[in-house]
Amino acid sequence: MTVKVSGYGVLSPTAPVAPLQFSRRTPRADDVVIDILYCGVCHSDLHQARNDWGGSQYPLVPGHEITGVVSAVGPEVTRFKPGDNVGVGCMVDACRTCDPCRQGLEQYCQQGPVLTYNGMDRHDHMPTYGGYSRSITCSENFVLRIPRGLPLDGAAPLLCAGITTWSPLRHWRVNHNSKVAVVGLGGLGHMALKLAHALGAEVTLFTRSPGKEADALRLGAHHVVLSTDAAQMAAVGGQFDVIIDTVPCEHDINPYLPTLTLDGTLVFVGLLGDMTPPVSTVPMILGRRAVAGSCIGGIAETQEMLDFCAEHGVVSDIEVIDIATINDAWQRMQKSDVKYRFVIDMKTLI
Amino acid sequence: MTVKVSGYGVLSPTAPVAPLQFSRRTPRADDVVIDILYCGVCHSDLHQARNDWGGSQYPLVPGHEITGVVSAVGPEVTRFKPGDNVGVGCMVDACRTCDPCRQGLEQYCQQGPVLTYNGMDRHDHMPTYGGYSRSITCSENFVLRIPRGLPLDGAAPLLCAGITTWSPLRHWRVNHNSKVAVVGLGGLGHMALKLAHALGAEVTLFTRSPGKEADALRLGAHHVVLSTDAAQMAAVGGQFDVIIDTVPCEHDINPYLPTLTLDGTLVFVGLLGDMTPPVSTVPMILGRRAVAGSCIGGIAETQEMLDFCAEHGVVSDIEVIDIATINDAWQRMQKSDVKYRFVIDMKTLI
Ligand SMILES: [Zn+2]
Ligand SMILES: [Zn+2]
Ligand SMILES: [Zn+2]
Ligand SMILES: [Zn+2]
Repeated sequence: MTVKVSGYGVLSPTAPVAPLQFSRRTPRADDVVIDILYCGVCHSDLHQARNDWGGSQYPLVPGHEITGVVSAVGPEVTRFKPGDNVGVGCMVDACRTCDPCRQGLEQYCQQGPVLTYNGMDRHDHMPTYGGYSRSITCSENFVLRIPRGLPLDGAAPLLCAGITTWSPLRHWRVNHNSKVAVVGLGGLGHMALKLAHALGAEVTLFTRSPGKEADALRLGAHHVVLSTDAAQMAAVGGQFDVIIDTVPCEHDINPYLPTLTLDGTLVFVGLLGDMTPPVSTVPMILGRRAVAGSCIGGIAETQEMLDFCAEHGVVSDIEVIDIATINDAWQRMQKSDVKYRFVIDMKTLI
Repeated sequence: MTVKVSGYGVLSPTAPVAPLQFSRRTPRADDVVIDILYCGVCHSDLHQARNDWGGSQYPLVPGHEITGVVSAVGPEVTRFKPGDNVGVGCMVDACRTCDPCRQGLEQYCQQGPVLTYNGMDRHDHMPTYGGYSRSITCSENFVLRIPRGLPLDGAAPLLCAGITTWSPLRHWRVNHNSKVAVVGLGGLGHMALKLAHALGAEVTLFTRSPGKEADALRLGAHHVVLSTDAAQMAAVGGQFDVIIDTVPCEHDINPYLPTLTLDGTLVFVGLLGDMTPPVSTVPMILGRRAVAGSCIGGIAETQEMLDFCAEHGVVSDIEVIDIATINDAWQRMQKSDVKYRFVIDMKTLI
């Protein structure tokens, strides 16, 4: 048994985003049904619609930064009730039994998490469809509570851009004694600045464009370093405990490694690709420095981040858009012409 | 005031290793004077003699895997007396006041450790000369005690090859619950197998040559995986907590990264160069895996390793040579034609 839901999606890698109808399952005993009010627009939406990573299934309904209100719950749901403010991020399920799952690291599930869109349900094997739509149905174990005080529009990007930067900041133990640098000032980068600042760290933005200083300081950076200026780079040698690298395309990280402290780590959160040009091991060996990657975050730590954001008044800087303008928004996003995340107002979905 | 010491060294990047005389300082109050009995032959000796890393000063007397017996001590020396079995490794001093130094991580001294050869003393600014020589004079703080029960010939390579693999095994907390893989079976690799085994880990050697299995198993490996065999590599996917990569030349690490477990780390200890071909971030992001470097080890942990080796009967597999054959030994070392470390018998220095 399924229900018809209206939304926006793509029918092929080259098609524009357009209105369509699709089927969702009727709620299961542990399901929460959510009226979607806002959905953030993530680079992944575009990459998966265009099949950039391979394996895309059509029709594809993007969107994994979803906030809304519970409209119904299954009989076994204990943690949510109709009217609650909730969110859904990048995952809607996982095996729940492997070591990573049991540690709350569902994003690293050994069987692979079930992605919010372009995934497949583990039970009925139906495709999953994302948040560019009227409603979503999701097991309560993968639903997040949006605390009172967090606006549902500004909170939506926390479900991907927020947790993707929060998780490495926490895993590498950033606190008020830490020095953190952020590479790139987009959707992920602006959240990294805000969250590192709220965690009490001394925060530096690395940028290649001199014009970003005022914005960076407003968003939480204490310092801005022009990464193309050798003198500025030398002045921050050996400083940073953690560098969060949010740049989604290939770029040279060699200038950043010597700015890490002993045992410091540069963490990729945005690049699914090659470290090109090749990275020298010399600063790694001479300072026991590391290069690592990090993927979104677990459900428990996503809730922790949402609670932290409510307490510290952290939300994403957004531009709210009408869903009819989504193709333009994707074009602007590709040019980094957004400060700093588009969020679709789902009331505009007729 | 200086004393003349005889040894073997090079006068230029292209000269053979040949007998020469050079000056060492007269002992200072905290100095230990050591009659050198054995000196291991490390790839660094060749690289620095040939000025492969730049900055070599001539004459250059190589050797930083030094064992011998104390012949004299300065008046302030408290920890050693004549007749003691001792060793000197890659460092003979450091600033002793920076954060890394105070943490016992002198190899990461912010002012740079004073290397045993091709370095410069911090006080008299005289060049340092290594262990291809009759004797060495070194502050007691950088002298290691060789425990009774460790033969001075087999222990010599512990001072570089041993500590270089021990330090990352300890830093990344290898124990009897760990699965460790080692890439490369030379001087460093054979020590990594022995030490990881003695620490109780389940140990795998990655090799590209099928002929190494018997030796690897004898040295401590529980498994040997042919890294050119995709099926064998797939069978060890997600297994290793730590990979110690001892290969000294550029090589592709992409096949190894998926064999790391969640939060696993591949540690370079032998390559001062580029990660070529470029490394994909995908397995790093999808498994929070890291690539790091590690440089020799601190003085306290070198002593810890020597004590551990005495307790567990671990020494290097060596070929003892006459110093007059050192040029041949370097040639054979370049062809990896040594099982697994040359050690010079210093009694052969006339
Ligand atoms: Zn996303
Ligand atoms: Zn799982
Ligand atoms: Zn060495
Ligand atoms: Zn120091």
